[in-house]
Amino acid sequence: MAKRVALVTGGGDCPGLNAVIRGAVKVGVDKYGWEVLGVEDAFNGLIDLDYASPHGNQWLTSHDVFAILQRGGTILGTSNRADPFNHVVRDASGNTTTMDVSGQVMENFRKLELDGLISIGGDGSMRIAKKFVDRGMPLVGVPKTIDNDLGATDQTFGFDTAVQVATEALDRLRDTAESHDRVMLCEVMGRDAGWIALHAGLAAGADAILLPEIPYRLQPLVDMVAKRRRRGQAFGVVVVAEGAHPTDGEQSIIERKLGAMPRLKGAAARLALELEDLIEPEVRVTVLGHVQRGGSPSSFDRVLGTRFGHHAAELVQRGDFGKMVALRGDDIVAVPIGEAIAEPKRVAPGGELVATARALGVCLGDE
Amino acid sequence: MAKRVALVTGGGDCPGLNAVIRGAVKVGVDKYGWEVLGVEDAFNGLIDLDYASPHGNQWLTSHDVFAILQRGGTILGTSNRADPFNHVVRDASGNTTTMDVSGQVMENFRKLELDGLISIGGDGSMRIAKKFVDRGMPLVGVPKTIDNDLGATDQTFGFDTAVQVATEALDRLRDTAESHDRVMLCEVMGRDAGWIALHAGLAAGADAILLPEIPYRLQPLVDMVAKRRRRGQAFGVVVVAEGAHPTDGEQSIIERKLGAMPRLKGAAARLALELEDLIEPEVRVTVLGHVQRGGSPSSFDRVLGTRFGHHAAELVQRGDFGKMVALRGDDIVAVPIGEAIAEPKRVAPGGELVATARALGVCLGDE
Amino acid sequence: MAKRVALVTGGGDCPGLNAVIRGAVKVGVDKYGWEVLGVEDAFNGLIDLDYASPHGNQWLTSHDVFAILQRGGTILGTSNRADPFNHVVRDASGNTTTMDVSGQVMENFRKLELDGLISIGGDGSMRIAKKFVDRGMPLVGVPKTIDNDLGATDQTFGFDTAVQVATEALDRLRDTAESHDRVMLCEVMGRDAGWIALHAGLAAGADAILLPEIPYRLQPLVDMVAKRRRRGQAFGVVVVAEGAHPTDGEQSIIERKLGAMPRLKGAAARLALELEDLIEPEVRVTVLGHVQRGGSPSSFDRVLGTRFGHHAAELVQRGDFGKMVALRGDDIVAVPIGEAIAEPKRVAPGGELVATARALGVCLGDE
Amino acid sequence: MAKRVALVTGGGDCPGLNAVIRGAVKVGVDKYGWEVLGVEDAFNGLIDLDYASPHGNQWLTSHDVFAILQRGGTILGTSNRADPFNHVVRDASGNTTTMDVSGQVMENFRKLELDGLISIGGDGSMRIAKKFVDRGMPLVGVPKTIDNDLGATDQTFGFDTAVQVATEALDRLRDTAESHDRVMLCEVMGRDAGWIALHAGLAAGADAILLPEIPYRLQPLVDMVAKRRRRGQAFGVVVVAEGAHPTDGEQSIIERKLGAMPRLKGAAARLALELEDLIEPEVRVTVLGHVQRGGSPSSFDRVLGTRFGHHAAELVQRGDFGKMVALRGDDIVAVPIGEAIAEPKRVAPGGELVATARALGVCLGDE
Repeated sequence: MAKRVALVTGGGDCPGLNAVIRGAVKVGVDKYGWEVLGVEDAFNGLIDLDYASPHGNQWLTSHDVFAILQRGGTILGTSNRADPFNHVVRDASGNTTTMDVSGQVMENFRKLELDGLISIGGDGSMRIAKKFVDRGMPLVGVPKTIDNDLGATDQTFGFDTAVQVATEALDRLRDTAESHDRVMLCEVMGRDAGWIALHAGLAAGADAILLPEIPYRLQPLVDMVAKRRRRGQAFGVVVVAEGAHPTDGEQSIIERKLGAMPRLKGAAARLALELEDLIEPEVRVTVLGHVQRGGSPSSFDRVLGTRFGHHAAELVQRGDFGKMVALRGDDIVAVPIGEAIAEPKRVAPGGELVATARALGVCLGDE
Repeated sequence: MAKRVALVTGGGDCPGLNAVIRGAVKVGVDKYGWEVLGVEDAFNGLIDLDYASPHGNQWLTSHDVFAILQRGGTILGTSNRADPFNHVVRDASGNTTTMDVSGQVMENFRKLELDGLISIGGDGSMRIAKKFVDRGMPLVGVPKTIDNDLGATDQTFGFDTAVQVATEALDRLRDTAESHDRVMLCEVMGRDAGWIALHAGLAAGADAILLPEIPYRLQPLVDMVAKRRRRGQAFGVVVVAEGAHPTDGEQSIIERKLGAMPRLKGAAARLALELEDLIEPEVRVTVLGHVQRGGSPSSFDRVLGTRFGHHAAELVQRGDFGKMVALRGDDIVAVPIGEAIAEPKRVAPGGELVATARALGVCLGDE
Repeated sequence: MAKRVALVTGGGDCPGLNAVIRGAVKVGVDKYGWEVLGVEDAFNGLIDLDYASPHGNQWLTSHDVFAILQRGGTILGTSNRADPFNHVVRDASGNTTTMDVSGQVMENFRKLELDGLISIGGDGSMRIAKKFVDRGMPLVGVPKTIDNDLGATDQTFGFDTAVQVATEALDRLRDTAESHDRVMLCEVMGRDAGWIALHAGLAAGADAILLPEIPYRLQPLVDMVAKRRRRGQAFGVVVVAEGAHPTDGEQSIIERKLGAMPRLKGAAARLALELEDLIEPEVRVTVLGHVQRGGSPSSFDRVLGTRFGHHAAELVQRGDFGKMVALRGDDIVAVPIGEAIAEPKRVAPGGELVATARALGVCLGDE
Repeated sequence: MAKRVALVTGGGDCPGLNAVIRGAVKVGVDKYGWEVLGVEDAFNGLIDLDYASPHGNQWLTSHDVFAILQRGGTILGTSNRADPFNHVVRDASGNTTTMDVSGQVMENFRKLELDGLISIGGDGSMRIAKKFVDRGMPLVGVPKTIDNDLGATDQTFGFDTAVQVATEALDRLRDTAESHDRVMLCEVMGRDAGWIALHAGLAAGADAILLPEIPYRLQPLVDMVAKRRRRGQAFGVVVVAEGAHPTDGEQSIIERKLGAMPRLKGAAARLALELEDLIEPEVRVTVLGHVQRGGSPSSFDRVLGTRFGHHAAELVQRGDFGKMVALRGDDIVAVPIGEAIAEPKRVAPGGELVATARALGVCLGDE
């Protein structure tokens, strides 16, 4: 008998999500004759089957996934905060509490007579997925993180597009920096992992790259600018990951200096304030923000998303649950979903990519 | 005898500046046998002939303008603050005063045995140019404003590229807004004129467009969001020009509410703060900033820049000074440089383009 | 009572068609409460109301035009060969004849109780539209030609995108030409009018531009290559409009030389064959073809299409039929549909844009 | 004492070559104090030290590699036919013979007092490199093939950009195909290996993908078109690798049918001719050609090129010659240069990526 399978996307949106959805639907519906339910706004659509949303729970056909490969975002809708194990509820007087509604999800899963669920999401989504697996839900995971910081897979979709968008922005900023003899700081995504900053910085020939994994001091940046000036280049481009921060020692000096000043939001804005007094060229800040998330996915991300979607569907078809698909070398493999969340992937300060940056004279802020 | 002609770029950089430079050099040097001096960092290179800068005063050949058509920025360097009539000087104790060094520029002009000067710049640069013309300098102007707000010319180069960059960013933000059911505010350039916001907003199908020329109230934005929700679209994209601001009445209410809160930088950030309490979808802000200025110019801007460069060179060759080149319909014409700065071009709240926006249901914030 | 209005797209597809459709639907349906019928595959859907096609005649709502602004092509489908006055019919034995089925279209128009028709198309479509207007159909025209060769409007949508696509391709070809010391010929659209070739050629800094309007000889091209070699540039980029051709005299010499050789398809391929024997660098040909037509429209084309769609709807609403919308300077105006097809717009060999090309040293093939 | 090292680029140009050059120069010159000679037009500049060329042998500094990361092609120039072991010489009467001038290269290498040579090139270049290594030249290889068909490295730079360019072209063609109900054939690079076709085809959601590794028959393509029509989609997009060809059996039938007809150039053009009679939708052909090679490299290709350049320089610095750098997983490794050319990498008809294509219903032409 034909299977009934649900698709869920959770966490921040990511270019390539629609490729996964399309891949799973084409394989599931067209090849295996499944009925596929697109669940709305992460697990919200399974917590409340009548959840009102523009996207809406819907049974998906090939027609619904037509021409979505080219589109950013997710046609299912998503949410950063939909955790059935800690569901946020607002009472009449506006106060919020959290409650565990995972039982309701299990119940709705049975009510819909589903045979499997494909959960596409990041670290948080996989933790939720693991709990459902432990409760017996026949679930397959597809990893999604734009920061590319999951240890269990060589790469995740969305990262390549985000790096490309950041690189193009850096190319643009360089033109202006050079014309005006300015130092341009560009803040890119990466709260805990600096992969986007490191790749985009190398791709754009940035003069300095500041990562969450390598706390920076101001003096190396001041030296870099001075050295460039001596060479006749009074401008510079500095890539700042969201999570970049000074060393603890430097931090306390800065805070003393800034005094009562309210904590500025943004790693690049803070750095600019600190740097401006120390160097002669003007300093300007650009925060890329959400433009890195949306937009038509790169060909790499479309292909990787498609492969993940296909393989997730094959796992469901085989009944091989509790696994997450992952890229290992050239192959798509299935790993236990618990392994997937075991260890995040961080930039190693002594690793090869950082060594390449140093060898090319890029300032990492630490020396 | 072959002429000696100087080229100056002033004000903020703009995609297409290099096209003008290339056009003038190719026509001047290759066709008319001129010697062409590229002046560094706006008028700085004429105030001080030994001005030390990476760009540097240099005699330009065809080779120097090879492959610059594709590049953003200006190979000559520029400055937003180089006004020889109000030159900023810093004394030993770090205090700054302004002095009139225009005589020095006139003197250096003679010392270099120059026969003409082509000044490429915006409103400010054209005011300076006018003063030099009045003092007898054989000068030709080329208009440059990324905001497209000069009354004397139908269009300026750089604007088309900036609109394209903003439109692509809005396309990206829409994906994320739709996936997360959010309202995305995107701040684009335009302190006094809202052309970029209006064009990019129409091109991207924005739900609201806020312009400096049309003070907004919050209620129409709240209504727009509510109306969209009723239609099942819980997201929205709002384009906010840098200079967009509430009506005076609304402004005072908001300030009272915000109390001692320090004035937030940025039109979009302010609006987000105000809007967040009034609507249910989350609100997110992106400030495009400098990425709108740099980058490879669009084909339109390359062609327009090339035409301006060509025609400026022809004016110099004919000795037809005190004029600025301008686009009028399909033609490049020469207008008196004084006329050029007479009247800025603003978005007319009752104009045709705004009417199109209204007819399509776009909220302009006033009704 | 609410109007019923049909929308038709005819001729080759063009980036911006969907912007027109969206503009007309949003204004018609949302502002004026019309019912809007999207007619399938040009007039085919009005010749035969049961015409089977993937696009299909359909009553359009705001939902149907959601997110189509970004998309190339036309959601209605189109056809290059749907002329109700010369309808091609195939009999049982496969022979084709043409017949006049315009009466059937008029009949179906009445049967559908339509109050107006908006016909979006090129030269051919406007001729057909004129005939229907003469028969009393309440019709409004919207001009569409990717070649920008309609005399009645300053510009048509699609052209800007096509020039941008061609310019980006030329930028790419230049890299390879320079690396390999080759002459690259790039054929772009333009059978009768060379606007795309001229604009893209200027935008990309092409070394020669060959237009239908200026018959070329080989010697000027050979001289151009030789002159570049003397300067140390052994490569070149030549833009060839589809309709570019040698002078009559040269043509006969070439044909004698080529002898019985079958007529080569393609202006660039022919030129390559002729040129290869005369110059030393290798010659390579690229034919851009259909990639110039599709793809996400530029912001300019989205805005122009939207304005056309809005104004066409206003004309219908006012009952001002028999007109075509057109861009004149900054304004959208309405011109009699007969005027629209009176005179094509060709590149003037002595015009300003060609003069700019010559002044920059670009070879036009005639001297 | 400071080393003297030469850089050579050979074979077809590739996006990312300049990243390798920049990486090697920055590490060699700035970090290790080398003198670096850029050799012109592959080995031509070492065969004849006075070889006249626009690029020219030149001692490279950091300044020469400024802002080349963003540029396609190679600043050194290249050639597809510069093999010192089979050097083509033209005598006075225009006849060509080949002679071995490798001794001359060895002699010039000594004359220039070079300590090492970095040869960046494809299969052919690596064969030449191997011969020079066998003769005792201290050489390090960097793999380059836009087709990504070298067995010794997981990926080569240029491939990602080529796939991206092809994917964007396919996205454009789809718009036109859909609007006109046509079947669009798009020929992409890949004479022996179908990687570009397979990746771009998957990324663009192509309906059929024809590879050199899987000979096709016409019937599966006809069936695919018919199946799509039954679903209401009268258009299709077919990606055709340059080296795609029918099965032997089908080939002979076709040739008999075509009779005396001269062999058409181009895999897609041939297929179009064959297909046109068998299916109803119109068939159109686009040959992407050289636009796939040039243009600004993707961020991935810039990073990979930079890493290769860095590591090649480190090998030279360590005196570890006779090796080629290669990507293995996340690491850059050094492999014996002989191993590099041992085995090409082909698409496996039964491999995972082809299986994904089949599972999604893509026609591979064989069933």
